Amino acid sequence: MQGQAQQQAYDRGITIFSPDGRLYQVEYAREAVKRGTASVGVRTPDGVVLAADKRSRSPLMEPTSVEKIHKADDHAGIASAGHVADARQLIDFARRQAQVNRLRYGEAVGIETLTKNVTDHIQQYTQVGGARPFGVALLIGGIENGTPRLYETDPSGTPYEWKAVSIGADRSELQEYLEENYEDDLTLDEGVGLALRAIATANDDELAADGVDVARVSTETEAFVELDNDEIAEYIAENDLEPSEDEADEGEEDEE
Amino acid sequence: MQGQAQQQAYDRGITIFSPDGRLYQVEYAREAVKRGTASVGVRTPDGVVLAADKRSRSPLMEPTSVEKIHKADDHAGIASAGHVADARQLIDFARRQAQVNRLRYGEAVGIETLTKNVTDHIQQYTQVGGARPFGVALLIGGIENGTPRLYETDPSGTPYEWKAVSIGADRSELQEYLEENYEDDLTLDEGVGLALRAIATANDDELAADGVDVARVSTETEAFVELDNDEIAEYIAENDLEPSEDEADEGEEDEE
Amino acid sequence: MQGQAQQQAYDRGITIFSPDGRLYQVEYAREAVKRGTASVGVRTPDGVVLAADKRSRSPLMEPTSVEKIHKADDHAGIASAGHVADARQLIDFARRQAQVNRLRYGEAVGIETLTKNVTDHIQQYTQVGGARPFGVALLIGGIENGTPRLYETDPSGTPYEWKAVSIGADRSELQEYLEENYEDDLTLDEGVGLALRAIATANDDELAADGVDVARVSTETEAFVELDNDEIAEYIAENDLEPSEDEADEGEEDEE
Amino acid sequence: MQGQAQQQAYDRGITIFSPDGRLYQVEYAREAVKRGTASVGVRTPDGVVLAADKRSRSPLMEPTSVEKIHKADDHAGIASAGHVADARQLIDFARRQAQVNRLRYGEAVGIETLTKNVTDHIQQYTQVGGARPFGVALLIGGIENGTPRLYETDPSGTPYEWKAVSIGADRSELQEYLEENYEDDLTLDEGVGLALRAIATANDDELAADGVDVARVSTETEAFVELDNDEIAEYIAENDLEPSEDEADEGEEDEE
Amino acid sequence: MQGQAQQQAYDRGITIFSPDGRLYQVEYAREAVKRGTASVGVRTPDGVVLAADKRSRSPLMEPTSVEKIHKADDHAGIASAGHVADARQLIDFARRQAQVNRLRYGEAVGIETLTKNVTDHIQQYTQVGGARPFGVALLIGGIENGTPRLYETDPSGTPYEWKAVSIGADRSELQEYLEENYEDDLTLDEGVGLALRAIATANDDELAADGVDVARVSTETEAFVELDNDEIAEYIAENDLEPSEDEADEGEEDEE
Amino acid sequence: MQGQAQQQAYDRGITIFSPDGRLYQVEYAREAVKRGTASVGVRTPDGVVLAADKRSRSPLMEPTSVEKIHKADDHAGIASAGHVADARQLIDFARRQAQVNRLRYGEAVGIETLTKNVTDHIQQYTQVGGARPFGVALLIGGIENGTPRLYETDPSGTPYEWKAVSIGADRSELQEYLEENYEDDLTLDEGVGLALRAIATANDDELAADGVDVARVSTETEAFVELDNDEIAEYIAENDLEPSEDEADEGEEDEE
Amino acid sequence: MQGQAQQQAYDRGITIFSPDGRLYQVEYAREAVKRGTASVGVRTPDGVVLAADKRSRSPLMEPTSVEKIHKADDHAGIASAGHVADARQLIDFARRQAQVNRLRYGEAVGIETLTKNVTDHIQQYTQVGGARPFGVALLIGGIENGTPRLYETDPSGTPYEWKAVSIGADRSELQEYLEENYEDDLTLDEGVGLALRAIATANDDELAADGVDVARVSTETEAFVELDNDEIAEYIAENDLEPSEDEADEGEEDEE
Repeated sequence: MQGQAQQQAYDRGITIFSPDGRLYQVEYAREAVKRGTASVGVRTPDGVVLAADKRSRSPLMEPTSVEKIHKADDHAGIASAGHVADARQLIDFARRQAQVNRLRYGEAVGIETLTKNVTDHIQQYTQVGGARPFGVALLIGGIENGTPRLYETDPSGTPYEWKAVSIGADRSELQEYLEENYEDDLTLDEGVGLALRAIATANDDELAADGVDVARVSTETEAFVELDNDEIAEYIAENDLEPSEDEADEGEEDEE
Repeated sequence: MQGQAQQQAYDRGITIFSPDGRLYQVEYAREAVKRGTASVGVRTPDGVVLAADKRSRSPLMEPTSVEKIHKADDHAGIASAGHVADARQLIDFARRQAQVNRLRYGEAVGIETLTKNVTDHIQQYTQVGGARPFGVALLIGGIENGTPRLYETDPSGTPYEWKAVSIGADRSELQEYLEENYEDDLTLDEGVGLALRAIATANDDELAADGVDVARVSTETEAFVELDNDEIAEYIAENDLEPSEDEADEGEEDEE
Repeated sequence: MQGQAQQQAYDRGITIFSPDGRLYQVEYAREAVKRGTASVGVRTPDGVVLAADKRSRSPLMEPTSVEKIHKADDHAGIASAGHVADARQLIDFARRQAQVNRLRYGEAVGIETLTKNVTDHIQQYTQVGGARPFGVALLIGGIENGTPRLYETDPSGTPYEWKAVSIGADRSELQEYLEENYEDDLTLDEGVGLALRAIATANDDELAADGVDVARVSTETEAFVELDNDEIAEYIAENDLEPSEDEADEGEEDEE
Repeated sequence: MQGQAQQQAYDRGITIFSPDGRLYQVEYAREAVKRGTASVGVRTPDGVVLAADKRSRSPLMEPTSVEKIHKADDHAGIASAGHVADARQLIDFARRQAQVNRLRYGEAVGIETLTKNVTDHIQQYTQVGGARPFGVALLIGGIENGTPRLYETDPSGTPYEWKAVSIGADRSELQEYLEENYEDDLTLDEGVGLALRAIATANDDELAADGVDVARVSTETEAFVELDNDEIAEYIAENDLEPSEDEADEGEEDEE
Repeated sequence: MQGQAQQQAYDRGITIFSPDGRLYQVEYAREAVKRGTASVGVRTPDGVVLAADKRSRSPLMEPTSVEKIHKADDHAGIASAGHVADARQLIDFARRQAQVNRLRYGEAVGIETLTKNVTDHIQQYTQVGGARPFGVALLIGGIENGTPRLYETDPSGTPYEWKAVSIGADRSELQEYLEENYEDDLTLDEGVGLALRAIATANDDELAADGVDVARVSTETEAFVELDNDEIAEYIAENDLEPSEDEADEGEEDEE
Repeated sequence: MQGQAQQQAYDRGITIFSPDGRLYQVEYAREAVKRGTASVGVRTPDGVVLAADKRSRSPLMEPTSVEKIHKADDHAGIASAGHVADARQLIDFARRQAQVNRLRYGEAVGIETLTKNVTDHIQQYTQVGGARPFGVALLIGGIENGTPRLYETDPSGTPYEWKAVSIGADRSELQEYLEENYEDDLTLDEGVGLALRAIATANDDELAADGVDVARVSTETEAFVELDNDEIAEYIAENDLEPSEDEADEGEEDEE
Repeated sequence: MQGQAQQQAYDRGITIFSPDGRLYQVEYAREAVKRGTASVGVRTPDGVVLAADKRSRSPLMEPTSVEKIHKADDHAGIASAGHVADARQLIDFARRQAQVNRLRYGEAVGIETLTKNVTDHIQQYTQVGGARPFGVALLIGGIENGTPRLYETDPSGTPYEWKAVSIGADRSELQEYLEENYEDDLTLDEGVGLALRAIATANDDELAADGVDVARVSTETEAFVELDNDEIAEYIAENDLEPSEDEADEGEEDEE
């Protein structure tokens, strides 16, 4: 480990290593991820759940406009945390890859293949000069050959497969909650509940229906479905996460 | 948070993150937006209103030459705040996208699609080196499949959908006014009034007809229409925003 | 506002914003404009007048060689202030655009269209790296569909339309004169007089016929015509701007 | 040897030598390798063994997702240590080279040829500007013309052939163990045991079956085969490496 | 005006403006011109004269090898002052332009057109990065449509037309001499005399025949002709510029 | 000569001269050569000998994998000293040149031609930006038209022809030994002996057979032949270079 | 003239002028020329002589390998001083130009044309970024249309024609000797003698036959011929330049 003055010398060039073998720009991009509100993914035998905290900044802003979960293909969805505009680029990239796969091979792209297409793309931005790394992490979830898969991508371009995972603000807190409460035989409904309760841990165990996005891809239908506000409200109620009267709009905002 | 000396180290390179995950050049581009006079958008069930403060610097300058609202397509308009020359580039880009859409698909481009084309373009300038970010925010409003839509783009390349929104100088003041006075069932006329009164809050509640641009796209006609001076004067009178005798020409100028 | 030391950090990179959202290289290019001798444009119902101060540095230099007014097309002229070699590039660019328009559409380019072609070109040099901004402002005047039009371009790439305008040295002084003396119903002859008197304000109210360029495009003929020395001398006499005996050759020179 | 201040002057530019003829960025990339968990290769007459330490960071992470051994072709595998996303790029590069060889020459690529293709690729990133070196070391093992071969690549792009070798964390400790215990006539089973015991030296001589990857290419079958958890557990038991009760998850993590 | 320390900050980047709107690299290129020996051009009704001071540094150097006047086309010549190798590039450029004109239009290129081709080329090197400006000034003289024309190009890329002009060392002294002694009705012979006497002013009113180049293009023949040593000696004698006994070889040398 | 502080200013840019006309990056690349173990070449009437010190770092590393002598073509070999990965690039380049020569002209490439192809390639990396110089020296030896030839290439791209030469560590010591002991009428066997004894001077006059590479191209066969361990051992014995009992593995390692 | 601190600011960028109009990188390249041993050219009515000092650094180095005189074409030779690897590039460039000329026009290239081809090439490296200037001076000598011609090229890209000239170390001393002893009617033999005596002035008036290269192109044969050692020894004896007993190998070496 070294002092602050020396660190400053290595963190401004994207494509150089520090003397201890670190890539500071990639580490700083991870900080951009932490500045975003949390997203959570939960994999159950019955399907994959994606949930995202999206506390809006103004009552006049359309909640859908800060959506953090997007359909990647019929059978796959993506949740993000971090720099919003960067997330949109990667999600578009993933969608194009999924379409190309359908055109070329006549079948849905595998979730692992899709994830690795995305991470290869991310890695290039950490090694070749002339651009900065992507300041965003993604959760890519879906059904591959009848099996639910859940992946994370980070700003270094490394893919990780998870049973349940959190990205963005308060990651260690949420991940600890997931580790303590995850069970292998959750139903899809229980998966939604776990995801919502994890997000609520950083919010005094309260959630508003229009403050979270939830989507799932069930093993049976292999179809990406976003829940509407009423469905979300029902889950919130079932999980005792209803906001108390004096709910205040505070907390981390997404890094834009 | 860190001291000023350290901040200076990260804010000159367009494409690098600071240690806390921020993109300073994008944040500085937001300052360029704040240096521009305000633009306001209001969405009502009957259509979308765009209004812009354009206080001229000389009686000899043609007011139209500092127009801040432009037609993007038959059914869509764009208002801007910030660096004027940058705004013109993005508006031209949007127009070309709208034309390409008509040529390719034989129909009007959706407002959301149009906005996201523009924000993708903006995002590229924040990640790839060799150019600076766009120092401008846009309001893109129009009718999509019979429904009024109102979007904001910011210098990071993030799209937001709004019921009513302000960009440029005094944003927090104007946005606060909009939040307090917006109602979901405004008529289009009431929408124009709300937009003008919001702009007037930063101007001692007075407006001159040739000091604002106003345009609207009604849900019925799906046509972008700019109001002429007489129509604007009428709205100003109706909303008690007529300038007092000793109107002085002061306030922020557009950042050129 | 910030101190000088900090300012220096942001003004050397063409394509970066300062923390308060300014583009210093564009602002410095405006200083290059101020270093050039003044040009004035006046729009009247009968046509557009362009006039330019071109005090020569040596009696052996051909006055035509420091011409500051150029024909852009049959129906349009351009006056400049600032870096002379840059002005020539933009004027050539404008001429090519005008020719392309005639070839493509079989008709004269509109003055507004021509101006915006030029400002788009200028803007690129303020956003993309690898080149400096143009250190010149232009006045583009001509007849469009029977109507006189007069535009200014500045180093940021913003177009402005004017009734009467001054660029270059002593702009505020000349512009003040124009504002006080402009009337909407000037004849073309009166327009020439106003332009000459404005230029003379910075020169002890005296002008030599070979020290100014004057051109006009009349609404009737739609033809760009440069005045010869005798015609200019007549206007100078009519406007009581004849130099006294001890005329000295001083004042700003064009920035070359 | 020189002082720290002077060193700092030469280590930030990828493509320059220091006064004593060193390439600091390559040396720093070697530090990135050391930050990764260890991989070990052992060559026996009966085949090549690859083994890798992959201690997971969370019980919810799929162990396969941090796999550090990959199939390069039917007859060849690759283990890595260091920057994970970089490793994936080089492994993909190696796979494409192997495929190209089959297409062009109709036969499996030689292990030496494959290795040198990879090291040539690595070297380019140490000499030509615009990108950083790869922060990863690889072990490439397989059968070539009936003979087992085991190669190492390092961040400078130098290929080394080994009987047994360790890369990543604690290299000197593990290599010392290998040197003391390697014998030329090991069976393939004994080779797996040696590799596992070497990895365990840095882990209190204990290993969990899901904490290591093991693969082998036997001389007889010429086929790359990854061991499953049960097989690995058997080897662990045979070699007395079973974890004691209070196994704690600590030690180096892979540099991502 | 600003202090020296601040100036240094703006003069090293070719393509940036200083805060007061100056291009320091162009101004420094003008200093390179001043470091070269003088060239003089004189236009008379009967033709154009080019003369250049070329005091040699060694008796063994061939005087022709430091020639400073070159034929550009049958009807046009070019004299230079400043960086010799740069001059050769621009002269070659001018020759190619003249040839292209003959090929395309079947006629001799106009002197003004030729000059502006050259100055456009020069300007590019002052605005676009990646190269330095040309450190040379040229005099381009010849006959265009029966009329003698004489142009100067400077390192900014600005063209000037002159009756008589000096470039290079001692410009102000020589130009003053030309202004005091030029008359509009000089014969071509008198023009040669004036040019030689101007050059001699900076040399104690003495010239050696092999220390100057002289060429002329007469209106009648429209042919570029270089004078030989005997002809030059005759002019020197006629103009009382013969060197005294103790002629010493001193004075400015050409900047190479 | 100048102080250290000033030197530092010129040694970081590859393609610039220092005020005293030196290219520091090339000089630093020479230091990289000195960091490598020695290679020696000896030319005799009967052929050329190449020998290289390659003390291995681990008993598990295959000695062939640190080979420092390579076949360039049937009639030519190359030994290297310095940065190993760079050496491999140049050797591949030389092999391709030799193949191209055979294809184009149907005959073996001349040793001088081959060398100059390589040095031209090296020189480019010292003049054009965007890459560092090659940190390696080569000995290129073979038979050309029945005559033995022995060349050295250095990091500046200069070719030298030698009777006997040493590159790498302890060059001055080894070269001194060669100068004192070389004779023009050596047999090829005596040449091998001289080369081995020279290398041994820096190693207490002892050598291990697997610690050196030896190859020769005899004038008679014109064939590049590498000696095997037994042959080398014989030469070591003949020349009394057998290691004593307590041989320790120390000395310079190759710069990788 | 300015102080050292300020100079340092302008000498590291290849393509920028200093405030007094100098190109420091070109001046530093001239220092590289001075670091090389001297070459001398002498032109007589009977032909051109090129001679070069090439004191070898080791008795084992082949003298031909440090040859400093090369055949450019049948009728032309080139001698160099300075950076050897750069010289080889320019000589190859010249040879290709000579060949191209023969192919295109069916005749030998003129010496002046050949020289200017080379200097144009050199100049590009002083104006366009991305490469350093050539650190070498050349003497190009040969017969053109029956007339002997002798040219010098310098690092700025300026061509000079000479009767007799020296480049490299001790230029002023050698040039002074040439100026004092050159006569226009030298025979070719006397020319060789003058060249050798000039080189010897910096070497205690002694020369060894294998320490100099000599070549000549006679007007009669128009053929480039290099002298062999015996011929050179004869000239040395004739000119009383034979080394005394205790000849020491000292003096400048070529800059490699």
